[in-house]
Amino acid sequence: MNKRPKILVTNDDGIFAPGIYALWEAMQEIGDVTVVAPDTEKSAVGHAITLIDPIRVQEIRRKDGFVGFAVKGTPADCVKIAIRSLIETTPDIVISGINSGANVGNDIIYSGTVSAATEGTILGIPSIAISLSAFKNRVWVSPMKVAKTVVKKVIENGLPLGTLLNVNVPNIPFESINGYKITKQGNSVFRDHFEKREDPRGKTYYWMTGRVVVDSDKSTDSYAIQNDFISITPIHYQLTEESFLKTLKNWEF
Amino acid sequence: MNKRPKILVTNDDGIFAPGIYALWEAMQEIGDVTVVAPDTEKSAVGHAITLIDPIRVQEIRRKDGFVGFAVKGTPADCVKIAIRSLIETTPDIVISGINSGANVGNDIIYSGTVSAATEGTILGIPSIAISLSAFKNRVWVSPMKVAKTVVKKVIENGLPLGTLLNVNVPNIPFESINGYKITKQGNSVFRDHFEKREDPRGKTYYWMTGRVVVDSDKSTDSYAIQNDFISITPIHYQLTEESFLKTLKNWEF
Repeated sequence: MNKRPKILVTNDDGIFAPGIYALWEAMQEIGDVTVVAPDTEKSAVGHAITLIDPIRVQEIRRKDGFVGFAVKGTPADCVKIAIRSLIETTPDIVISGINSGANVGNDIIYSGTVSAATEGTILGIPSIAISLSAFKNRVWVSPMKVAKTVVKKVIENGLPLGTLLNVNVPNIPFESINGYKITKQGNSVFRDHFEKREDPRGKTYYWMTGRVVVDSDKSTDSYAIQNDFISITPIHYQLTEESFLKTLKNWEF
Repeated sequence: MNKRPKILVTNDDGIFAPGIYALWEAMQEIGDVTVVAPDTEKSAVGHAITLIDPIRVQEIRRKDGFVGFAVKGTPADCVKIAIRSLIETTPDIVISGINSGANVGNDIIYSGTVSAATEGTILGIPSIAISLSAFKNRVWVSPMKVAKTVVKKVIENGLPLGTLLNVNVPNIPFESINGYKITKQGNSVFRDHFEKREDPRGKTYYWMTGRVVVDSDKSTDSYAIQNDFISITPIHYQLTEESFLKTLKNWEF
């Protein structure tokens, strides 16, 4: 590809999050960027789409040149509406992020960041999700560099139909990173529980909380970022458990 | 298992939907049922969970004996909070549905019905999603019979860790059904587009619409229900695209 690639940038933290701004800045250097992102934070929305409500879109312009579309919808909505309605030419690549907080292990099925990239893949466009493994004191320079490298590689090599890349970057200076690791989705889970509380009027409510339980398998995404590697996992959305088909056929329904 | 199984019933159409009532009625015959479901319709919410807001729970009692918990949250929230907080003994099985409308092909990644069963699986409980292939003139008797059969089979045989069953039932009398088919997730997609409209104040909004494109592969879920079979697909949530790992390692990051 000789001309500059057309890059669609989105996220789930919302169009005013620092991570999407960092991603926009990084992508500017290598392509023509369109930003279409949720108007507010949409973390842990999974692969939600908006069917029941109308979707509104507002153009956002900042003094520094940042232009984007703020969508009253989910990350998957943003990618759908961008490609179907808002932009004229289909983008060469979709990149979602930079998410604040890692998206690894079983938690990727809750991830709005990953769902946006999945939507891009469903629509036939090579897509990437990128997350930074921290919620505060974030060093955006590392994931910005990584985003550029991965996008260039994907444009050079392409991706198989139905496969996207889930990228996670440790929150340390780029020089301290041990390198890239191609990983598998691990089994780390958010061991959640619900705190039972009372509101000021004496009514009960619940608030979800918990902690991440990391798995020790060295081939996984969470192990890689815990050990200061950049993790890249190829993922798909073909959910059939092939290994169980034969057994199930013997159940004799 | 000699004692009556403990069955957790949930859905994404909400606790007042006819499908969950039909499922409750069917499950009553074979086990001790607890209903924990969203207070309103949560279709196409994907695998969303509620982190930002508190979750409220209200007990619902109907004159006919139906008792359930209405949760201000997503289907995945319902299963999480049921197991973590609301019910004392872990259920033997989680069943989500009966959804109004099929959940087949790529659309299962948007499905709240499937996400509830996925959450049950993540929490280590054998789980089933069941959907009826119609939005109106629904015949609940067929999926009620199917739900009982599938639940009994699962209790008898168990399910492998991390695998759930996605069941779809054609909307015809039980006698007209051609039988059960063990299927794969197909490639049928919702070919969506956005209608651009103007609100009464002249402001633009968008509404998603579209039609389903069915695939012709005879081994798939959508093919089965189109041909009057009950479809059972074993699904998982390990999203790693194993076949691409080796190629990706040769990209030399």
